[in-house]
Amino acid sequence: MENSFGKLFTITSFGESHGTCIGIVVDGCPAGLPVSEEDIQREVDKRKPTSPIATTRAEEDKVEILSGIFDGHTTGAPICLLIWNKDIDSSEYERGRFLPRPGHADYTADIKYGDFNDFRGGGRFSGRITATFVMAGAIAKKLLNLIGVEVLAYTIEIGGIKAQPKGLDEIRQNADQAALKCADPEAAKEMLKVIEQAKGEGDSVGGIIEGTALNVPAGLGEPVFDTLEGDLAKALFAIPAVKGVEFGSGFSAARKRGSENNDPFVIRDGKIVTTTNNAGGILGGISNGMPIVVRVAVKPTSSIAKKQETVNIEKMEPASLEVRGRHDACIVPRAVPVVEAMMAVTLCDFAMKAGLIPEVIK
Amino acid sequence: MENSFGKLFTITSFGESHGTCIGIVVDGCPAGLPVSEEDIQREVDKRKPTSPIATTRAEEDKVEILSGIFDGHTTGAPICLLIWNKDIDSSEYERGRFLPRPGHADYTADIKYGDFNDFRGGGRFSGRITATFVMAGAIAKKLLNLIGVEVLAYTIEIGGIKAQPKGLDEIRQNADQAALKCADPEAAKEMLKVIEQAKGEGDSVGGIIEGTALNVPAGLGEPVFDTLEGDLAKALFAIPAVKGVEFGSGFSAARKRGSENNDPFVIRDGKIVTTTNNAGGILGGISNGMPIVVRVAVKPTSSIAKKQETVNIEKMEPASLEVRGRHDACIVPRAVPVVEAMMAVTLCDFAMKAGLIPEVIK
Amino acid sequence: MENSFGKLFTITSFGESHGTCIGIVVDGCPAGLPVSEEDIQREVDKRKPTSPIATTRAEEDKVEILSGIFDGHTTGAPICLLIWNKDIDSSEYERGRFLPRPGHADYTADIKYGDFNDFRGGGRFSGRITATFVMAGAIAKKLLNLIGVEVLAYTIEIGGIKAQPKGLDEIRQNADQAALKCADPEAAKEMLKVIEQAKGEGDSVGGIIEGTALNVPAGLGEPVFDTLEGDLAKALFAIPAVKGVEFGSGFSAARKRGSENNDPFVIRDGKIVTTTNNAGGILGGISNGMPIVVRVAVKPTSSIAKKQETVNIEKMEPASLEVRGRHDACIVPRAVPVVEAMMAVTLCDFAMKAGLIPEVIK
Amino acid sequence: MENSFGKLFTITSFGESHGTCIGIVVDGCPAGLPVSEEDIQREVDKRKPTSPIATTRAEEDKVEILSGIFDGHTTGAPICLLIWNKDIDSSEYERGRFLPRPGHADYTADIKYGDFNDFRGGGRFSGRITATFVMAGAIAKKLLNLIGVEVLAYTIEIGGIKAQPKGLDEIRQNADQAALKCADPEAAKEMLKVIEQAKGEGDSVGGIIEGTALNVPAGLGEPVFDTLEGDLAKALFAIPAVKGVEFGSGFSAARKRGSENNDPFVIRDGKIVTTTNNAGGILGGISNGMPIVVRVAVKPTSSIAKKQETVNIEKMEPASLEVRGRHDACIVPRAVPVVEAMMAVTLCDFAMKAGLIPEVIK
Repeated sequence: MENSFGKLFTITSFGESHGTCIGIVVDGCPAGLPVSEEDIQREVDKRKPTSPIATTRAEEDKVEILSGIFDGHTTGAPICLLIWNKDIDSSEYERGRFLPRPGHADYTADIKYGDFNDFRGGGRFSGRITATFVMAGAIAKKLLNLIGVEVLAYTIEIGGIKAQPKGLDEIRQNADQAALKCADPEAAKEMLKVIEQAKGEGDSVGGIIEGTALNVPAGLGEPVFDTLEGDLAKALFAIPAVKGVEFGSGFSAARKRGSENNDPFVIRDGKIVTTTNNAGGILGGISNGMPIVVRVAVKPTSSIAKKQETVNIEKMEPASLEVRGRHDACIVPRAVPVVEAMMAVTLCDFAMKAGLIPEVIK
Repeated sequence: MENSFGKLFTITSFGESHGTCIGIVVDGCPAGLPVSEEDIQREVDKRKPTSPIATTRAEEDKVEILSGIFDGHTTGAPICLLIWNKDIDSSEYERGRFLPRPGHADYTADIKYGDFNDFRGGGRFSGRITATFVMAGAIAKKLLNLIGVEVLAYTIEIGGIKAQPKGLDEIRQNADQAALKCADPEAAKEMLKVIEQAKGEGDSVGGIIEGTALNVPAGLGEPVFDTLEGDLAKALFAIPAVKGVEFGSGFSAARKRGSENNDPFVIRDGKIVTTTNNAGGILGGISNGMPIVVRVAVKPTSSIAKKQETVNIEKMEPASLEVRGRHDACIVPRAVPVVEAMMAVTLCDFAMKAGLIPEVIK
Repeated sequence: MENSFGKLFTITSFGESHGTCIGIVVDGCPAGLPVSEEDIQREVDKRKPTSPIATTRAEEDKVEILSGIFDGHTTGAPICLLIWNKDIDSSEYERGRFLPRPGHADYTADIKYGDFNDFRGGGRFSGRITATFVMAGAIAKKLLNLIGVEVLAYTIEIGGIKAQPKGLDEIRQNADQAALKCADPEAAKEMLKVIEQAKGEGDSVGGIIEGTALNVPAGLGEPVFDTLEGDLAKALFAIPAVKGVEFGSGFSAARKRGSENNDPFVIRDGKIVTTTNNAGGILGGISNGMPIVVRVAVKPTSSIAKKQETVNIEKMEPASLEVRGRHDACIVPRAVPVVEAMMAVTLCDFAMKAGLIPEVIK
Repeated sequence: MENSFGKLFTITSFGESHGTCIGIVVDGCPAGLPVSEEDIQREVDKRKPTSPIATTRAEEDKVEILSGIFDGHTTGAPICLLIWNKDIDSSEYERGRFLPRPGHADYTADIKYGDFNDFRGGGRFSGRITATFVMAGAIAKKLLNLIGVEVLAYTIEIGGIKAQPKGLDEIRQNADQAALKCADPEAAKEMLKVIEQAKGEGDSVGGIIEGTALNVPAGLGEPVFDTLEGDLAKALFAIPAVKGVEFGSGFSAARKRGSENNDPFVIRDGKIVTTTNNAGGILGGISNGMPIVVRVAVKPTSSIAKKQETVNIEKMEPASLEVRGRHDACIVPRAVPVVEAMMAVTLCDFAMKAGLIPEVIK
């Protein structure tokens, strides 16, 4: 079940970039949740490319519900969600069929699936597939909403430009609407310049996305293997271009003393909290009631116009290529809603394991 | 199956720090693999505390094979491996029962399992449990050895001191035997000073471990969810104290241009390789034949002698504590063989999914 | 993953009887298998109602491939197969919404999913869902064909009329084409009479289907829990109306002596075979190279025109109902291809576990 | 995870008949359940051989708890339960190493695991392994007890002698204590004669066991694949010698009219019940609140003293053998507590999926 994720709230993805459609089956969703195509469309729209940094592929990405919803509510049956592919132009890919693009899955897919791999537009390995994750995330977010959990993701770094930490209100507002999904508008301006410059040079830049989950009840997580960190990380590494995942103080913890990094417990408003959150809300693989904080490193877009060295795998001889197609010079902003979605899907699964979401919602 | 990991090569861990024993069941191992208690003991011994930085708990940690081996070979039946706990002193823990130690799972375990949690020595959340991972890893390494795969882990940073990159020979030699499992003896001396200084101050330090898998055949990994990165990360986050996982250029990729970070393909000795390895040997979630490179951030040991703020959860009042017990001022070296083990277990599972290891070894 | 089945060859079913569509995602199919919509249509057509005993719902049941096939071959990506629902008439069901039909899932679905259950035409519990199993089975049969395995199912009893055992040729011919999928034309005539008589009385009859898998290599099955019998049984009980599953001599073994029931081993044409097949081709949960033989008991169709006692669950008062709708007086013949499909799916999964089917088919 | 069963309440079995021990890991048990070795011993003792029909292997079968219990209660950690093997005599098996016993797994295990199979006493395929199922079942029964569910199994047929249906009180008393676990003492006398006669002739007999689960709440079961019937059947086919499983009217449903077999709904004491229980308490794969009724066919013991035809697989030549060893002339009574255990384990898993058993028991 390589294309399924989750134990009780399970998603099964299918579809290819240049095939008929992309879709996802969400299994295990309780009955009685109000869900409309608009609810899901709203989330999917956040993934849309925003000029001037993004692909010119003009997909409407219209969400269709194929099953599992009746009279505007989930029925307890699996929910199949679909987006038909429309603006397909595979000509460029035909030309490059035997020239694996550096940084892409072309070469490994060829090794694994041989000549049968659907190479058009990256096929199954395209970032486009993550639109299906966002559809599933839309449902997960609605379920989490029932128990007061809010999931937010936002850009905190692009091309070396770091955003200043911002308050929740600014994050909430900008994470969804700002072009770069960054809560710091000043930094965003600089980021945009860096992106445009890279684009102008036929190049691309990467960045870092932070995800936060608020009001997560203490007690989620199933050690020793099904830890909150482990499953969140697995979910996030399913996003193409993610090459690192850290929680709380993360890699910087490696340079801290225990006395700095340990989060002291105190009582506030009758509740046990920690004064700092170096743990990122997770101790022993289990949520401690503080915000879950995770950061993912997104590599620079692999598709670049600059000339690159590669190999013609048919003739087994050196070759070079310039990736034309239609691509984003920086994928970070479009990955933000996907991070949010995968966090929501994972937390939803854990909430169900913990018995926090009933089989029927009333 | 919170305490199980792996799909075809599956490990199921059990036991507590101060209970009767710790153990693991390895299911799915092909028949015909020569395995002795000595083979496994050798790996477990690498996790032994090394003075002067480590715990004074003096466990012999003698490995016993309870099932699955007959006439010196695996039979195809599940292999149960056990270590009896011997040097148990729970007195300190009884005293601190209602004082959750900052950075530890005490609080979250109490939330999740209530009064029934086995709090003695961290119980199920103790680093001691990872000795069972090492036992399973010993078998995984033997299986990987059959297809020429070598897994190596080694310390690359402790308390802010970074090791210089070293060649494979130095790594192979020092990763196993050096006190700090660091391939750079010069850096190791500095690291030791930092650890001793922290220890002297009743404090602790963290660090970074790098893991490398050599000769991994191209084609391992099952996108879109069961990616090599995702499953390796999940496996590594099962190690207590790990707070970050990155592959290849990892978080530094976020600051690179696509033209820098993409690994160009070339032909060498008739084989397709990449000239750099920013991908850490993984493209599209699938191995590309280059070395798998992963780094994990290990937080400073949570148990410190310094006075810390906490809460008495029984009386719900502020409290302070000094963790006495018997602890490591730096857990990094002892986590090295565990990283190696979890990498081996994960790669072994993928090798089996890819059909590279037969049901019977001849 | 209640709606998924299989470990390496995994199917995920979705859709409802009177919803937009019914569909299935087949994950884990190797790349390179030639698959066309016609291939799958051919299998689905075997499930079509055949006059005079069947429902008058006139569904074209046209198969559409949504993903996973490129240039006529599987790509290694998940294959989504769909049938749009067309001839929907839910009026009768609206009327009976609060009157659970005896023998149907109406009552238990209401208990489990509350008012949100899609009750129209049995919704998710309709026999119509099994058309999705047949689509997945079509692919499984093609994969099994590569290793020479043939799966056959056929009616051996309806309404108390037993068929005479027939040779493989007669079975092959009649299982697919004969109206009752029975290899014995004489018995089939009697069966038809019994069905027509029951139908005339507003009643229904059940029967027994036998499934055989030929040329199954010895060695398939994963004890102690993932036995061949266990997984085949689980797969077959997913077919609505199946209430019993037995292998080889099955329940009659309970009345035999060991000396009768044990199958003696002999050598024939240089191969070890058994002279009888009371084991149904399975010993210790593992195939022994003899034909796999399984029989499933199919209860009489629950939907009958005769007046039945029930309860109005809204008003909690006694009620009676006559099920009108459009139903089969005997579901047995239409279940035959479904038995075949579920056997194929299960055996395909085991063949993949045993490494008999490569990741890429050449 | 061939040796694991269950999704939330998961058991992982290990050990061999003539190895060091047999054991099981129970994962997912909530914290706070009082469990002692005596509790588990009591269930295991029901599986003990009872003269004069049984094996003379004299195993004390003393249960040891290795993990997961602290201060007399479950902790939420995995529970490892062990029985050391003591009365081992493998001499007979060495002699018959290359002579697969008809009806046994010797031949298929040899095919699957080659020369490495632990053939002594049937190794992993021995009925002795089911003692580990009973240990897990003891915990499952305690959990089910919390929600009022009672699981009972009892012999209803041996060697063709059928028991008369009896009331719950007689069943409760005799299922545990009577030598043949049959609620009908008159029939039991006849059964004993049949067994003794078979034994005298160096032969064996089979039989049928019925299992009932009382007070199962309506709503358990996860269609379309994780049905109550499907998972119970899979669990029961894990018991060696089981060759058929049926629910409610089972195979006899095939000969009934719909009007006979459908169970009419009525209101009794304010509750919806059915007047008959041909469904065996399951509709659409979901419990309907009526007793779950399942029957399993147990084949006659494969080990018989009578001379049997087989093949010397080393020399590939015809051979004959008389199985000496120490065996039961009828395994049915000893399988009764195993049926009970596997039913309990399965129902417990479903109860947890339905959220009926909390993470911590208070």
